[in-house]
Amino acid sequence: IGDTPGRSVYLSNRGNCIRQHQGILQEGYALYGMDRYHDTDNPDGIINMGTSENKLCYDLLHKRLTKPDMLHIDPCLLQYSDWRGHTFLREEVAKFLTHYCSSPNPLKADNVKIIYISIWSSCGYRVFHVADAILIPIPFYGVITEDLHLYSDVKLFHVPLDCEADGKDSRPFQLTVGKLEEGLKRAQQEGLIIRAVILMNPHNPLAEIYTPEEMITFLEFAKRNELHAIVDEVYMLTVFDESVTFHSVLSVDSLPDPQRTHVMWGMSKDFAMAGIRIGTLYTENRDLVEALAQLGSFHGISGTTQHQVAQLLQDREWISKEFLPENRSRLKAAHKYLTEQLQSMGIPYLYSPATLFVWADLRKYLRESSFEEELSLWRNFLRHKLVLSCGQAFSCSVPGWFRIVFADQQHHLQLGEFVPVKEDSSKSSDQPKEKDSPVPDTGLLATEEFVLLDCQASKPAESLDSLIGTLRHQIRSSDWLEKNTPELSAGEDPEILDVFKVLLQRARK
Amino acid sequence: IGDTPGRSVYLSNRGNCIRQHQGILQEGYALYGMDRYHDTDNPDGIINMGTSENKLCYDLLHKRLTKPDMLHIDPCLLQYSDWRGHTFLREEVAKFLTHYCSSPNPLKADNVKIIYISIWSSCGYRVFHVADAILIPIPFYGVITEDLHLYSDVKLFHVPLDCEADGKDSRPFQLTVGKLEEGLKRAQQEGLIIRAVILMNPHNPLAEIYTPEEMITFLEFAKRNELHAIVDEVYMLTVFDESVTFHSVLSVDSLPDPQRTHVMWGMSKDFAMAGIRIGTLYTENRDLVEALAQLGSFHGISGTTQHQVAQLLQDREWISKEFLPENRSRLKAAHKYLTEQLQSMGIPYLYSPATLFVWADLRKYLRESSFEEELSLWRNFLRHKLVLSCGQAFSCSVPGWFRIVFADQQHHLQLGEFVPVKEDSSKSSDQPKEKDSPVPDTGLLATEEFVLLDCQASKPAESLDSLIGTLRHQIRSSDWLEKNTPELSAGEDPEILDVFKVLLQRARK
Repeated sequence: IGDTPGRSVYLSNRGNCIRQHQGILQEGYALYGMDRYHDTDNPDGIINMGTSENKLCYDLLHKRLTKPDMLHIDPCLLQYSDWRGHTFLREEVAKFLTHYCSSPNPLKADNVKIIYISIWSSCGYRVFHVADAILIPIPFYGVITEDLHLYSDVKLFHVPLDCEADGKDSRPFQLTVGKLEEGLKRAQQEGLIIRAVILMNPHNPLAEIYTPEEMITFLEFAKRNELHAIVDEVYMLTVFDESVTFHSVLSVDSLPDPQRTHVMWGMSKDFAMAGIRIGTLYTENRDLVEALAQLGSFHGISGTTQHQVAQLLQDREWISKEFLPENRSRLKAAHKYLTEQLQSMGIPYLYSPATLFVWADLRKYLRESSFEEELSLWRNFLRHKLVLSCGQAFSCSVPGWFRIVFADQQHHLQLGEFVPVKEDSSKSSDQPKEKDSPVPDTGLLATEEFVLLDCQASKPAESLDSLIGTLRHQIRSSDWLEKNTPELSAGEDPEILDVFKVLLQRARK
Repeated sequence: IGDTPGRSVYLSNRGNCIRQHQGILQEGYALYGMDRYHDTDNPDGIINMGTSENKLCYDLLHKRLTKPDMLHIDPCLLQYSDWRGHTFLREEVAKFLTHYCSSPNPLKADNVKIIYISIWSSCGYRVFHVADAILIPIPFYGVITEDLHLYSDVKLFHVPLDCEADGKDSRPFQLTVGKLEEGLKRAQQEGLIIRAVILMNPHNPLAEIYTPEEMITFLEFAKRNELHAIVDEVYMLTVFDESVTFHSVLSVDSLPDPQRTHVMWGMSKDFAMAGIRIGTLYTENRDLVEALAQLGSFHGISGTTQHQVAQLLQDREWISKEFLPENRSRLKAAHKYLTEQLQSMGIPYLYSPATLFVWADLRKYLRESSFEEELSLWRNFLRHKLVLSCGQAFSCSVPGWFRIVFADQQHHLQLGEFVPVKEDSSKSSDQPKEKDSPVPDTGLLATEEFVLLDCQASKPAESLDSLIGTLRHQIRSSDWLEKNTPELSAGEDPEILDVFKVLLQRARK
């Protein structure tokens, strides 16, 4: 079977499986990686509104991370270290979490394990291995599936949430203890052993925040059933709506089952440092910390990076007075911009006071309610150089929902903005049997539909792509870009939008 | 079974197994971690001559790593990156290896995968998983066993090397193709599928260097049998004997089976940065690179660290003119010091032109040739605050061999020096049935034996510990330490040795 297409004769079946395996999120990210949009170097490149990264704060981070204290080198940083993480860092993390999670009592450094932000693999597999599955409400951050798939035989047992608010549920995709109970019962009926439940707060991709009351009921459910509760709070400081307060489970005075409650946090989201690869696990369960420490030698993190992170975490002045307020206001503006566009296009979305993304309902762009349709819509976006994340990547039970990341410079969001149009337009080119496509009569979209049909009249096939080509060409060739590159790179320049508008007018005539 | 002593009711069997699992190397390192020797803060602490770390060059590294170019922060460093490693780093690694491995042709960045230095787990398991076992000559770097044990079901199939040179072998522990062939045959007779062989050059723990001719014959053996050859060259620049030249397999003009030849290197040993956790895999096999890249997201390395390493690797001036020459001469001096001590104590050891350690024959200190005896000797060293690595940790087939790391400041080596004596002395206290102990009539050791017996006469039981106590107390209390701490930390101060000598004289009277 060495000549199976695409199969490598040099790799094991497992190796081939891993090599060829690619989830939707990875596929989009991989394509983006090969053709990243850049204002000047690659203006035809792919714009990534699919990967959850905060790209709004590099200036703040650059300023802080290039301060002299970051350059400290101590011999211990260059030596093998405590596999739980350097003591100085675990102490800083404990203080940091005590403060920002408003813990009633000081958290202990010995309960902190410095980890890869992608801990699911080791945590899920190594420690809960005898369990067949982990309970998880869907939709959820899809990469967890990959982690477990690649590293273990542990399955995720899905607890589907309804996208429509009904009698019982006051809001869409609402998680309730009833649904958890029901999911657990189903798993047991299937003869599966469940040892853990994954809870995310703020939620990814729903971007909602659970109240302390809700979280307590979830944790009590876990205790009743002797489940480890893995609580993912990696977005805990990424809350930009002042009217909403996030409550960490670490702020709870007496947890229902502290020995089975494990809280994850990391630098990737709250400090806009996905590339720094540092996360933390806080648990009173020393057995778990020890078990993970045994694996630490394979997941140790550079001592110099641990030092940089410790310096950052101890700088309360910078965090509370500079970074967090500025980060929040930038996120708020970007969120406002995106949601206004969605509103103007009549695209429903969940209210999100936190995180870097919006969970949007693009079902009206599906010609039929199927995941094939959702995927073809996703590919359509991609063909037009825009990466989004579609619901099936999050195991969403209903097709048509997309996660749209807004934490990017506004003119990138603007470039992304045209895409829903492109999608409908290019159907003709990629669908053998033509179908009627819904033309929502919503302001902006309608006018764009018009433009689009107008273009199609002249050049039926690749019309839309060529329009986009024109737009991008205009942006590239006109001299304002040279003039304004500095402002551009600061993401302040409004002219791209103007160019779009002008071309829009022109196309109308 | 929740109440099995030591077993955690909160962890799975797997979790408990991992938590309680501890190899000899880990045990020694863990104890050291809790009680590290420090000249001033913890002079009664454990001295670690067991872990292979180069502690001789922190001053050089500090100077270089605190230069301004290390402080550069680019947005891409803070974003998710190519899971093979940042392009800028892979390019630097390719250039670096091309130069320092004297590659006939420029090596390609696309063949470079930035990895955890502890790659065995992912490499061995993920890629060669269908194989039952990997062929490996013993003794070998013992942690590989742990890696595979924790991460996979892949076994290591041992190819034992004889500690005595005989007719066929010109030197002890010599690796020959004959032994590899024989090992492979045995494995096949046991019905095992073998897909890979691990080769180390320079070797750990033997510290020997294989000639290009030898390596080629090993690689041809691998090709004949369609085995992946995983070549570990992490000590390639740690060669301090100018009369010896190391030849990387990357310097071979045409490798027997390039698609199955994978070369590992890292910063830990050659750049004295065990704490930086960066390694590289070079292979022309893109399938393998892709497969490992798929796992990269779980093993990504901090962008800032990748930048620091790239800056270091591109600084040829510093590497070739400052770091390498100075590192070599310091290693040479430390190696000379240790081996002279071993000679004066009549302890045989393998000639080692490279690495950070010496493979020494302590069989004469075993009361019988058994691994229990070896372990009790190891524990004796430990009880006297010295960590070494005993042969069974390297799966050595003959008991009594120890790996002694010399890459430390001389006065630490001196503190370690007394231990073989302590071992023999304290038998009485830790052995129920007393046996005659061999008293090798070798200069230094003999006198020490004398000292020792002398002490025992006065205080039979803990005599030796009290002598050490006196020594350490003297070192601690005398004011020269305060006076000379700077020189001390530079490892230049000869006075400790004097103190020892004085006390030795005093004890003789």
